[in-house]
Amino acid sequence: MRNLPLPKVYALIEPGPVVLLTTSHNGRANVMTMSWHMMLEFEPPLISCVVSSGNYSFAALRATKQCVIAIPGVALAPQVVKIGNCSGQDTDKFTKFGLTPVPAAQVEAPLIDECLANLELKVTDTRMVNKYNLFVLEVVNAWVDPGQKDRRTIHHQGYGSFAVDGETIKLPSKMR
Amino acid sequence: MRNLPLPKVYALIEPGPVVLLTTSHNGRANVMTMSWHMMLEFEPPLISCVVSSGNYSFAALRATKQCVIAIPGVALAPQVVKIGNCSGQDTDKFTKFGLTPVPAAQVEAPLIDECLANLELKVTDTRMVNKYNLFVLEVVNAWVDPGQKDRRTIHHQGYGSFAVDGETIKLPSKMR
Repeated sequence: MRNLPLPKVYALIEPGPVVLLTTSHNGRANVMTMSWHMMLEFEPPLISCVVSSGNYSFAALRATKQCVIAIPGVALAPQVVKIGNCSGQDTDKFTKFGLTPVPAAQVEAPLIDECLANLELKVTDTRMVNKYNLFVLEVVNAWVDPGQKDRRTIHHQGYGSFAVDGETIKLPSKMR
Repeated sequence: MRNLPLPKVYALIEPGPVVLLTTSHNGRANVMTMSWHMMLEFEPPLISCVVSSGNYSFAALRATKQCVIAIPGVALAPQVVKIGNCSGQDTDKFTKFGLTPVPAAQVEAPLIDECLANLELKVTDTRMVNKYNLFVLEVVNAWVDPGQKDRRTIHHQGYGSFAVDGETIKLPSKMR
């Protein structure tokens, strides 16, 4: 995996891909599927996301204040859905779904080797956790795997239906 | 346009499409392009979004506490980018870009007739506005235009590059 400059992180999150969120708590790694996330700031890159208090990952995220957001390509879609349909409470999801945990540089939570990109994050604001389960996180390190040629991500449209990235269009923009 | 049951709104926002946000302030309508948004709750549907204080729409949204989020299809992509590259301060964007404002039912901001779907929203929490320009809004009414056959949305990947929805895959999911 290659290190990604932090100001480029927004281009991974802004398109709204389904992502995986990993945590490590009391020596045990876990992973959940997430679609409720958005960019909050370019530099330093801040991400806001909702991790439901009903998710097993919630306690780990709140206690450790660290996680990894991994971006799976379409090849991982079946596993991504299954990961979202079971709980770390009774399942070692890395083993069950054949995901390879890789040590991160700045957080305890593992990167996922099979993903297109991995972001290391630290929780920086928990004021909205009690009311909305909303966490504010800063991306402290980012990785991309340039070796994966199929870079299409998936977007949840509800009820088990996912849009896969299709053609790319380029339009002159003053935006970054 | 057909009314959409509110519990189905998340399926429009969760995939991360580029959207248009309209406001109406002092009798004048405006529209901006937005990609930093996410679902926050299913029922009632809550959406969180970032409207930069540098955007002309910011003052209107903060003052009126009302807006519309309209979801454009790929056919509108060139206009969507141009809307994001100019300011309502000196431009009547509805006229300039050929958008048809349609009165909403519960908010002053207009729906956009050319869009695939329109959500009427009221700001319900401004606690994160000063620090992050983050608004919490409740969807109070939703519309879809079933007459538009090409329902592909666009996803900003940065630097003027957009992924267009491609194939749809269905995977058995316990999620809604």
